Amino acid sequence: MDHLLPCVASLRLVDHHCHGVLDADLDRDGFESNLTEAGSASPLGTSLFDSSLGLAVRRWCAPLLDLPVLAPADEYVARRRSLGAAEVNRALVSAAEISAFLVDDGVWPEDFVSPSAFTGSREHRVLRLERVAEDVVAEGASVFPTRVRAVLDSTPAVAAKSVAAYRVGLALDPAPPADAEVVAAADRWLRSGSTRCADEVISRFLVWEALDRGLPVQFHVGYGDADLSLHECDPSLLTDLLRATAPLGVPVMLLHNYPFHRTAGYLAQVFPHVFVDLGLATHSVAHRASRVLAEALEIVPFGKFLFSTDAYALAELYYLGALSFRRALSDFLSAGLREHAFALADAERIARLIGWENAQRVYRLE
Amino acid sequence: MDHLLPCVASLRLVDHHCHGVLDADLDRDGFESNLTEAGSASPLGTSLFDSSLGLAVRRWCAPLLDLPVLAPADEYVARRRSLGAAEVNRALVSAAEISAFLVDDGVWPEDFVSPSAFTGSREHRVLRLERVAEDVVAEGASVFPTRVRAVLDSTPAVAAKSVAAYRVGLALDPAPPADAEVVAAADRWLRSGSTRCADEVISRFLVWEALDRGLPVQFHVGYGDADLSLHECDPSLLTDLLRATAPLGVPVMLLHNYPFHRTAGYLAQVFPHVFVDLGLATHSVAHRASRVLAEALEIVPFGKFLFSTDAYALAELYYLGALSFRRALSDFLSAGLREHAFALADAERIARLIGWENAQRVYRLE
Amino acid sequence: MDHLLPCVASLRLVDHHCHGVLDADLDRDGFESNLTEAGSASPLGTSLFDSSLGLAVRRWCAPLLDLPVLAPADEYVARRRSLGAAEVNRALVSAAEISAFLVDDGVWPEDFVSPSAFTGSREHRVLRLERVAEDVVAEGASVFPTRVRAVLDSTPAVAAKSVAAYRVGLALDPAPPADAEVVAAADRWLRSGSTRCADEVISRFLVWEALDRGLPVQFHVGYGDADLSLHECDPSLLTDLLRATAPLGVPVMLLHNYPFHRTAGYLAQVFPHVFVDLGLATHSVAHRASRVLAEALEIVPFGKFLFSTDAYALAELYYLGALSFRRALSDFLSAGLREHAFALADAERIARLIGWENAQRVYRLE
Repeated sequence: MDHLLPCVASLRLVDHHCHGVLDADLDRDGFESNLTEAGSASPLGTSLFDSSLGLAVRRWCAPLLDLPVLAPADEYVARRRSLGAAEVNRALVSAAEISAFLVDDGVWPEDFVSPSAFTGSREHRVLRLERVAEDVVAEGASVFPTRVRAVLDSTPAVAAKSVAAYRVGLALDPAPPADAEVVAAADRWLRSGSTRCADEVISRFLVWEALDRGLPVQFHVGYGDADLSLHECDPSLLTDLLRATAPLGVPVMLLHNYPFHRTAGYLAQVFPHVFVDLGLATHSVAHRASRVLAEALEIVPFGKFLFSTDAYALAELYYLGALSFRRALSDFLSAGLREHAFALADAERIARLIGWENAQRVYRLE
Repeated sequence: MDHLLPCVASLRLVDHHCHGVLDADLDRDGFESNLTEAGSASPLGTSLFDSSLGLAVRRWCAPLLDLPVLAPADEYVARRRSLGAAEVNRALVSAAEISAFLVDDGVWPEDFVSPSAFTGSREHRVLRLERVAEDVVAEGASVFPTRVRAVLDSTPAVAAKSVAAYRVGLALDPAPPADAEVVAAADRWLRSGSTRCADEVISRFLVWEALDRGLPVQFHVGYGDADLSLHECDPSLLTDLLRATAPLGVPVMLLHNYPFHRTAGYLAQVFPHVFVDLGLATHSVAHRASRVLAEALEIVPFGKFLFSTDAYALAELYYLGALSFRRALSDFLSAGLREHAFALADAERIARLIGWENAQRVYRLE
Repeated sequence: MDHLLPCVASLRLVDHHCHGVLDADLDRDGFESNLTEAGSASPLGTSLFDSSLGLAVRRWCAPLLDLPVLAPADEYVARRRSLGAAEVNRALVSAAEISAFLVDDGVWPEDFVSPSAFTGSREHRVLRLERVAEDVVAEGASVFPTRVRAVLDSTPAVAAKSVAAYRVGLALDPAPPADAEVVAAADRWLRSGSTRCADEVISRFLVWEALDRGLPVQFHVGYGDADLSLHECDPSLLTDLLRATAPLGVPVMLLHNYPFHRTAGYLAQVFPHVFVDLGLATHSVAHRASRVLAEALEIVPFGKFLFSTDAYALAELYYLGALSFRRALSDFLSAGLREHAFALADAERIARLIGWENAQRVYRLE
């Protein structure tokens, strides 16, 4: 943490969107399969350690496992196995120094544990909306709206999450669907035999029902795995829905956003209820995070930007997500201080807003 | 203006697209409402002074109002009120050192004045096309084409401006519409009871009629307020129309362009009549303007790029638009000189072209 | 080549996509017409030497023709003529120090020669798919599929190239078309009287047939001349086709990609058979290449990125393509070394992969 501005080095971080940690030992293939958004290393390419993120693992995580900086990939994976998942997870997740986690538990294999298990940090739940739909649809189309509402009415979650980007794209119709439309959609879904929620009417219904209950909604936007089509994940496609939901006064969070982070910043500036982050990209671009974060912060009000890791499975991603973010934020603030664009008190305020105050305010934490 | 290359510090600037200055005192809410493209500060966020632009106001404008650098926002707004709008406008607009303004007077509240009122600079008019349509449509659909042509035939404006981006998006059909189509569109409009011009046929008609008369047409592109959908404001959507209008040999200006400034640069390179700028974004991104301008200049020929502020209402935006532009251009040229990409005479020529020569040539000023 | 990292200065380069060299003397208009993607300098603008690329010609190519650095454009063109095309081509193409060329000979005027003619480098052929279709369609619609297959079965090319981006856009249907559909499409084409292949079914058929034979397929993506519409050249539009073709295990190369290079990097990360480059843009953005390459390398695995020039006609473009690439790659690696993101051995490996190893592996060269 050398070279960080003091106000960033000691900054409290609320990770407003992450997932569970894999509590299992991994061989090299298993590790690489979880490292990036690729399903696995390609036989046509080379190791996924040949990437900015792979280098960052060897550069920053190796020393935390008592290996030399930039230890070879095989040594890293062997050391990881010999220490065991529990110890590796403890070392890396705690090194992230994250005070609170908002955890999306929509995908949660049996060997997943919460990141707070390793740190004693606070943890809050994020409810995956499509998972709610998948859990209740078998009870029948006619009761589907009622059953969804009951889950939302009783959830302890502080936010809901929509993966419409993956299922139907972000070009959602703005209008809240009538119950009859939702029942018809649930009926079509049940007849299709699929267990997967992938219907525009239902995605839209879920979002409106969550917002109507005052539950902030997080949208997956942009960069993700091969299941999505990036041009359908441009946040601008949500514009009509954002226009329609603005009067509710309930926050909408655009997650990740890369490579549409400038477009996301525009939406956060012009819509009063829109907030954005740079999760997933922050650690994926690794030593290039300063440049990408600086782009993401160009036009977004600092009261509208949040920190997240979007870490999933590998403890390395919590650590690198927080580390890359701290380094990038420190670089952004240091550059501004150096050219006298703002003063230290301004830098401290910006750090505080983005690090935890915005999250605490909009999710009403504590 | 320290640290600026001399050829930029003394550079004559023609602002080829700006609006009127608000001649009224503002409280803090009023000021923030005019600062960015947000309608107002959000109760869910924090002050809009928490932004790169807000910091730039406190950093650069405060000293011009005899306040310390980075004076607090409340002090800044109070000082602004105590000096009075006339004095603030004079101090800030004249500090921009802009030699000529091309003013879009399509939105002109009663308390607006021309920026040239504070500087004695030359001023030229830009005719808002949709406003022309809105002014004449009530005379009846059948005479609508004739009436539009009469206004265009007699206008003293040096350019026309289209806000098709806001009204129908930029995916305009390339063909000039027949009068019968235009009359039918005007008839639909009149029957709708709306006073707002938002019809693709009419937007297209207006553009063709202006170009047919040799009047350069400026298009709003990209970044703007919440009334637009950013994916419908990608300048590439204009490609068919640009292909169709190229033979006329009349300039088409793509304004603003952020975050599509690279796409705009491509269009300016490959279409002989296309020109681009980075107005609005230049001051909005504030201390990040050097990076964004460098991107905008990557592939655009230097004979095809223009300066503009797109300043509206706040005198601060004229000053910061010019200041950010000068700093960013100086940084671009200094970096090139430092790495010996070009010589001082080249830097001086690039500055001159972009600062005023291109505007003077394409609008045939003086 | 001063200031280059030694591992980059001496790096073997395989140019996996370029075109022929024009063996004819040019006057200034002729030179400018071939310099950028503009058809010619515009009467409304200024010389195309007023561009980053134009400056790079004067800065870097002038000394190779025994002129002073940044010699005026007229002197440069005059010197070029007095030396003669053969000597200019020899001096500039050999200075590129490219070990092997993969040459797309789909557009090959009579006065074109292969770049290897000036260097003795190895040369491999890239088969332009639409050209194949145009060559055989006159034999009749009913035999069109058979005739295309016969050409593909016997081609000595190491890769095929699709210009679907120029002809129908990249939003290709993912399914391989049935022969009956292809015959119907060829029939429509023949009846249209056009000699130009511009049919979605046929473009798709050509790609599937090449991949079915194990022939890597290169797609033009993004930046090009005025014949394309940039929003139809977003590589994300290929997602469905990439999903459908992944099981074949045959490489698909996304060429150029600017300004969609980040989107291309995403596709190369998540699809096992996708590879990307930054050809054309690398020399077009000239002294800004370091920034653009750094963006392109943010999330792409280093085993999935290739070098190309996309040089066409002007010998300058081979030299500047290689020079800009070497400088940008050296800057990327030097910055990483400076901030200890990776070690020298890592830098050397990245350079080797991108410079030639990836190309050699995926095209099975030698």
